[in-house]
Amino acid sequence: MNEMTFQIRTEGDICLYEQIYQHIRGEIRRGKLLAGERLPSTRALAEYLQVARSTVDYAYGQLLGEGYIESRPCRGYFVCPVEDLLLLDGDMELPGDSGEGVRAGEQGGRPGQGDGAAGEGRAARRQDSTVPGGNETGRDKGMGARAAVDFSPYLIDMTGFPFGIWKKITKNILTYANSDLFAKGGPQGDWGLRCTISRYLHSSRGVDCRPEQIVVGAGNDYLLLLLEKILGRHVRIAMENPTYIRSYQIFRSFAYTIATVDMDECGMRADKLAQADVQAAYVMPSHQFPTGTVMPIGRRMELLKWADGGKDRYLIEDDYDSEFRFRGKPIPALLASDRHGKVIYIGTFSKAIAPAIRVSFMVLPEALLARYRADCSFYSCTVSRIDQSILNEFIGEGYFERHLNKMRKIYRAKHEVLLECLGDLREDFQVSGENAGLHLLLTAKNGMDERELIQRAAQRGVRVYGLSESMVEEAPDSRTVLLGFGGLGDKEIRDGVARLKEVWKGKG
Amino acid sequence: MNEMTFQIRTEGDICLYEQIYQHIRGEIRRGKLLAGERLPSTRALAEYLQVARSTVDYAYGQLLGEGYIESRPCRGYFVCPVEDLLLLDGDMELPGDSGEGVRAGEQGGRPGQGDGAAGEGRAARRQDSTVPGGNETGRDKGMGARAAVDFSPYLIDMTGFPFGIWKKITKNILTYANSDLFAKGGPQGDWGLRCTISRYLHSSRGVDCRPEQIVVGAGNDYLLLLLEKILGRHVRIAMENPTYIRSYQIFRSFAYTIATVDMDECGMRADKLAQADVQAAYVMPSHQFPTGTVMPIGRRMELLKWADGGKDRYLIEDDYDSEFRFRGKPIPALLASDRHGKVIYIGTFSKAIAPAIRVSFMVLPEALLARYRADCSFYSCTVSRIDQSILNEFIGEGYFERHLNKMRKIYRAKHEVLLECLGDLREDFQVSGENAGLHLLLTAKNGMDERELIQRAAQRGVRVYGLSESMVEEAPDSRTVLLGFGGLGDKEIRDGVARLKEVWKGKG
Repeated sequence: MNEMTFQIRTEGDICLYEQIYQHIRGEIRRGKLLAGERLPSTRALAEYLQVARSTVDYAYGQLLGEGYIESRPCRGYFVCPVEDLLLLDGDMELPGDSGEGVRAGEQGGRPGQGDGAAGEGRAARRQDSTVPGGNETGRDKGMGARAAVDFSPYLIDMTGFPFGIWKKITKNILTYANSDLFAKGGPQGDWGLRCTISRYLHSSRGVDCRPEQIVVGAGNDYLLLLLEKILGRHVRIAMENPTYIRSYQIFRSFAYTIATVDMDECGMRADKLAQADVQAAYVMPSHQFPTGTVMPIGRRMELLKWADGGKDRYLIEDDYDSEFRFRGKPIPALLASDRHGKVIYIGTFSKAIAPAIRVSFMVLPEALLARYRADCSFYSCTVSRIDQSILNEFIGEGYFERHLNKMRKIYRAKHEVLLECLGDLREDFQVSGENAGLHLLLTAKNGMDERELIQRAAQRGVRVYGLSESMVEEAPDSRTVLLGFGGLGDKEIRDGVARLKEVWKGKG
Repeated sequence: MNEMTFQIRTEGDICLYEQIYQHIRGEIRRGKLLAGERLPSTRALAEYLQVARSTVDYAYGQLLGEGYIESRPCRGYFVCPVEDLLLLDGDMELPGDSGEGVRAGEQGGRPGQGDGAAGEGRAARRQDSTVPGGNETGRDKGMGARAAVDFSPYLIDMTGFPFGIWKKITKNILTYANSDLFAKGGPQGDWGLRCTISRYLHSSRGVDCRPEQIVVGAGNDYLLLLLEKILGRHVRIAMENPTYIRSYQIFRSFAYTIATVDMDECGMRADKLAQADVQAAYVMPSHQFPTGTVMPIGRRMELLKWADGGKDRYLIEDDYDSEFRFRGKPIPALLASDRHGKVIYIGTFSKAIAPAIRVSFMVLPEALLARYRADCSFYSCTVSRIDQSILNEFIGEGYFERHLNKMRKIYRAKHEVLLECLGDLREDFQVSGENAGLHLLLTAKNGMDERELIQRAAQRGVRVYGLSESMVEEAPDSRTVLLGFGGLGDKEIRDGVARLKEVWKGKG
């Protein structure tokens, strides 16, 4: 496969792993890759294609599972004899070749944004009916690669979305809309929505902030872009490792110097942070992604004390999924403990309502608010007044709270099903992060490493996600995978875990 | 007025000039500023408050017009005797003092975005019913300062907006929406919308681009933020002077070095550009803001040749209002003449449809597309799939074209009314920029400078806009004002020009 020069298409509706799978499968079926030929290592191919290694792992796992390739210990992956393959369809035109392409940005993601690979891929597949050169038949051909069960931590349950209410509110807003609603609003967002958000933060997150401090924007990524303009260009920022890798990618695309600071069971270590020579620290105190760590009050105070120790030090609190906590009391935001204007709080409605609700918000401390107004208020608001009005009504009329309560119940039930199913898998795995959020972490004690876990799962049609996808630096010794349950039904969860047991039990 | 320490509030619903007007008026009425006291110069106050000088000019003009202050030649502005003032209402509590505040970002703006000061202020006033400490009575009190006629070049006509059709499409989309539409789409935007935009660019702008090259985003400002990440951090960029000042502010908020390049009647001078040692040039070839210059094909080819002369040279084409041309044939985009991937095209629907439609798009040349995909595709799309679907339907079903034709007629009629009204004002003024767009430029030949024009207009309750607002460097000798007509009715245009004639005629 030295001539494997296929191009990864970053657009369209097929996941990256599927395209890799389909391409190699196609090359084998067409006889371009011959029996016995060695495939590139997953590391080499991942580097070449600039994708996460686990994506290639998963594609290889699928090919292994379907008998296209075989793994020879210590030697690598080899093409199986093609005559052994049952060619089910005669058409060699594969979807990956027909101009359809594959979405980019598969690495990283987080349930808070609902913007993980699988979610986008799925949605895109059904919607984008005008993909050039593509057609339903052509597209469905390659679907053998789709996981039977996808334990994506990046998916949320959309069946619980109150479509009816949302539609009703939208219709009402449009019915009574005058031309003002189609005009552009102020740069920070509509005053009414900001008042509503401020009340919501007070009642549910223990936060007292003025609506003046709130900046509304179309997604966390945009707010971070804006924050770069407020904080300045050459910030040294601390992140945990593992962390939410999309934020890492964004900070890296800035001129920021990123220092990873060690974590313990309480989250980012304050002593290490003090040594790191940074001005800002990015944390998720209510529920760290991906570890699920909840930062106790003691550590919070230590971080705040660190921030108090320097004039221009700030903590960036990404409160991405505080709504979904299954054990213990709700935990207030870090911002609630902030007395000296040291916390920049970022919240989102993309997860708790729907990823399509591209509304996030940022609470700025007074000093940064002044800087925002002086330096950045010419940036127009990225959310339309119509969308802001719909959301304002949805929260203000109590629908949001009702929706959250409903979703909390739904996710708690799924969470319990998953924990119950795991059963004797617990003998071979340590389970963590089980108090909140939409995924668990399983760490193998039976000698399997992350890649083997992913590949074995793929052979049974199950997709799990490696912890190393969230690592800033490579962690070759990871034995941990993430099992998300947000987007799965009970039956799928049970089926998926049963399959995992077949391939994960024992060894060691 | 040495103790004039009032604070400009950057939030709320009162324009900056109004707050300045109200504050000084209040101080005079309350007796805190005494007859004969000298006010700070407009330059000093503008610097102190960090607002555009024309904003203070306008506020002073209003105070002059209402007899609160007087201008003494070569000496400055002085408070008139308070006993001469008729205090109409007893309540001294002024809206500016009651926590309502004033929107920021008044300086700069352009009709393409519909995000000029007056537009926002108006919209905010009627919508934000929850402003703290504010109430309708309190708010209406200060309205004496509102211009009777506001020739804002930043307003568009929303009476022509097809609310009915927009509502119908929205309802349809929501009725048939499944959960996919509430999921997050791909980072570049939905494929369907991008195909539609690509067809639109072909038919109306003479541009051949692939949908793959299109990146959809919530407004031009956001797309420029994204472009910064694609082009890199330390770009040297050329701009015309005057130019669209919001883009200037945005580039300045980047680490970009901005070089202003001289213009002539064909737009940016290519010979000066070649001397400027820059990698990129920002131009509006179809209709330069604010001068209205249309770049002829010869100059376009010169600019393209300049760009061809260096590997990493690009032209950023901001095609903000090409839809509204009243004389001559439609002019193709600069991108249409680009043979070597040198043009980054930015277009918007905010102006041609409505400012609330926060959808802009960028066409990337292949080389930059590759960079975008490698370095930036993790940035989530800032426009929801629902909004994309509505717009896609609006364009795809032919409503957009019909709307454009309708608006072109409406604006042409207003344009003709304004030109006709000007009448013998042409003896004292040179009129330019009259072939396209939603404003004209008037340059005084009677000795009045821009400030005098603005102040005299304000005394008659008319707001006009100084050319120097669009200048990158200060132009103390400007004698040019902008008269926008997009947001005015025929009667207002006639009334406004009649008032201007009263104060602008003669002298010299």
